[in-house]
Amino acid sequence: MLAHRLIERKRDGGRIDAGEWRALMNAYAANHIPDYQMAALAMAIFIRGLDREETSALTEAMLRSGATLDLSSMKAPRIDKHSTGGVGDKVSLVLAPLVAACGVAVPMMSGRGLGHTGGTLDKLESIAGFRTDLSLEQAKAQIEKLGCALIGQTGEIAPADRKLYALRDATATVESIPLISASIMSKKLAEGLTGLVLDVKRGSGAFLPELERGLDLARTMIELGADHDCPTVALITAMDRPLGRACGNALEVEESMLALRGEGPPDLMEVTYALGAEMLVLGGIATDIDAARRQLEKAIGTGRAAEKMQEIIEAQGGNPGVVDDPAVLPQASHVELFPAPRRGFVARVEPRTIGRGIIALGGGRTKIEDRVDPSVGFVITAKPGDWVEAGEPLATVFASDRSGVESGRGTLRAAIVIADEADPPLPLVSHRVTAGGVELYSRD
Amino acid sequence: MLAHRLIERKRDGGRIDAGEWRALMNAYAANHIPDYQMAALAMAIFIRGLDREETSALTEAMLRSGATLDLSSMKAPRIDKHSTGGVGDKVSLVLAPLVAACGVAVPMMSGRGLGHTGGTLDKLESIAGFRTDLSLEQAKAQIEKLGCALIGQTGEIAPADRKLYALRDATATVESIPLISASIMSKKLAEGLTGLVLDVKRGSGAFLPELERGLDLARTMIELGADHDCPTVALITAMDRPLGRACGNALEVEESMLALRGEGPPDLMEVTYALGAEMLVLGGIATDIDAARRQLEKAIGTGRAAEKMQEIIEAQGGNPGVVDDPAVLPQASHVELFPAPRRGFVARVEPRTIGRGIIALGGGRTKIEDRVDPSVGFVITAKPGDWVEAGEPLATVFASDRSGVESGRGTLRAAIVIADEADPPLPLVSHRVTAGGVELYSRD
Repeated sequence: MLAHRLIERKRDGGRIDAGEWRALMNAYAANHIPDYQMAALAMAIFIRGLDREETSALTEAMLRSGATLDLSSMKAPRIDKHSTGGVGDKVSLVLAPLVAACGVAVPMMSGRGLGHTGGTLDKLESIAGFRTDLSLEQAKAQIEKLGCALIGQTGEIAPADRKLYALRDATATVESIPLISASIMSKKLAEGLTGLVLDVKRGSGAFLPELERGLDLARTMIELGADHDCPTVALITAMDRPLGRACGNALEVEESMLALRGEGPPDLMEVTYALGAEMLVLGGIATDIDAARRQLEKAIGTGRAAEKMQEIIEAQGGNPGVVDDPAVLPQASHVELFPAPRRGFVARVEPRTIGRGIIALGGGRTKIEDRVDPSVGFVITAKPGDWVEAGEPLATVFASDRSGVESGRGTLRAAIVIADEADPPLPLVSHRVTAGGVELYSRD
Repeated sequence: MLAHRLIERKRDGGRIDAGEWRALMNAYAANHIPDYQMAALAMAIFIRGLDREETSALTEAMLRSGATLDLSSMKAPRIDKHSTGGVGDKVSLVLAPLVAACGVAVPMMSGRGLGHTGGTLDKLESIAGFRTDLSLEQAKAQIEKLGCALIGQTGEIAPADRKLYALRDATATVESIPLISASIMSKKLAEGLTGLVLDVKRGSGAFLPELERGLDLARTMIELGADHDCPTVALITAMDRPLGRACGNALEVEESMLALRGEGPPDLMEVTYALGAEMLVLGGIATDIDAARRQLEKAIGTGRAAEKMQEIIEAQGGNPGVVDDPAVLPQASHVELFPAPRRGFVARVEPRTIGRGIIALGGGRTKIEDRVDPSVGFVITAKPGDWVEAGEPLATVFASDRSGVESGRGTLRAAIVIADEADPPLPLVSHRVTAGGVELYSRD
């Protein structure tokens, strides 16, 4: 009866109060509300929306439907980063050990890839032996010891969100800003954070391509953070082209290890430093962004960030040798250069096309059950705005057989557009959003 | 994938075309689409609506998901009536044999009571032995022989509608005019009709109390009839008070038998004649409403209508003696008069309160599985506008025990309002709606 009454009310544009959200999500997590009722409610929410108080109460209700990480005995600030996802986005792999090396505890809970975007868990699991399925107890112990754990969403965390997320995926109710925000924040708040930094992607490869929608999402999550004593800052970053050069699980781990050793591509470093600096300032480790950035650069320069990654990998059962020698990662049997078909400017490198191309190579998922081949993917050295000569190598295809090479070539032909002119790409980091409002991001 | 795409499109206000409706409803009837996807779609339809073509295609798709009655070999016109339901609405029990006695074939498929409104099947089953679960073959044979069968929706008819209807009930997506219209018309069109008359109730006891919503529903169903070569006419009738005097299954059968013998209460006869006349004119049995009405009155006066009812009851396994002697019906053990608590005008007899009072006595359903006690209910002789003296009997409670009598008394105290003044009740039949438009109904 409760569910029916709430569906009816939301259908007609009414409000659901905090006690009702709590009762509803507890009953749903306990399988006392059928999926068909929750699906009707999700659609009513998608169309009618949720106000700030409702979004906050839904977040709280999903958070309370499960267990949480209690890190309150730690003296260190506990800060995580969340990204809305993109192609080539391996920032978490660099950022988590880097920031932990600077004294911030990072209880980083990540997801798997689905659709055209990759997932941190899949990337980590291309490291032989690496386990992401730690229990909350194990994660807590590791964070207390090393300042960082890289884990998946356990069954203990926000079970109501897990069920609702799977249902939304099947019922075309994913792209709702209050539902997205409540889903992300219920998990992040379960990590017992003292602060959170959001990487909200925009551009053709982003989950929400439009800047305005990205800003809405950022503002909604910042409000939710404020409502739950978790100061939150968002940066809007570019996803109109892949981030860095490597796209594909093991290839991205390799690039991340290079980055931790100071050899990362400039765009990846720029985004990583921008997000990391916010984390250090939020955590009180640095007094301003410039000072924070210097600390981050130093942690890489001295090798402390790479060492931290070795410790984390070792603690989680993986081969720490990967940091110094990425050749231990799974290697694709078929590797082929992709030459520029003509001279001109690189006008576009379309991230969705690349992301779908990785799926076609067997390196991504269309369904959550799909298995992933970690070795395949692309390394794309061409960036929008570059001038290239015909025949000059733009990228490399990594495949498991000849037909994969063919498919990868087709992907690159479609994704990389060469033209006589090229519009400038989006700025890598364009906006900074805080509880105080939106400002243009600048580094001068 | 189909379902996901269509949900998404309807969510964003787009259209679903005829081929897509067909594929969707066939897959749903075959259990290839999960209820949660259909629930999300139903909510999107509820909020975004369906245009005429979509409603028509959905109706057709649900109709084609199952078997249909093929009565095309009959020479007689085949006309049914559908009512949106109300309290004391026993019109079908009188109308079907009456119109069949005049030469119209009536393949009448009815439903069970749910919530405050009663259902024709429950009423019929208070006649000992009466079977409503005929197969389509059996119904066809009986209609060819007697011109009428009174049956329930078999599993063969519109299975996609059956599933969707149950789902809508659980997901707060019932009161959508396109979904209601498609549901009703998919079943009615499966009866192989040459015409259909709709009794659309309005007033506080109606499913859609507002006149404008009732007119919308009538127009939508008339359009669907036109799209499927089934000329359809609707009358808007009053449900601001119960129809007739008897409210409760066996009590309503008794009143219906009296009506077939010429002793029905005037309001019941008025509505029955108005609907019946439309059926005779639609069927080409009478040239105009007045002539049709004289034929109906004659069929009652000569006893032909009552005889037809005896034949139908006998054919369906019931005791035909009930027509002449309603005392063979189940009788309540506790019967008590309800006196007027004060003098004044009867200002209201609230049908929803009466309907819920019948449920409280055990004579109705809140869930489809509930069993029904046929003997209980009310006979309410007081009508809005009547002047009554204190202590004068207004009604009788029929219950199965003392606590039922108490409960029934409470119902009547709440339902019957006596006041110093009384607004006039709604006209019994107020509007006539055809493909040509809406006109005020008049009998001069």
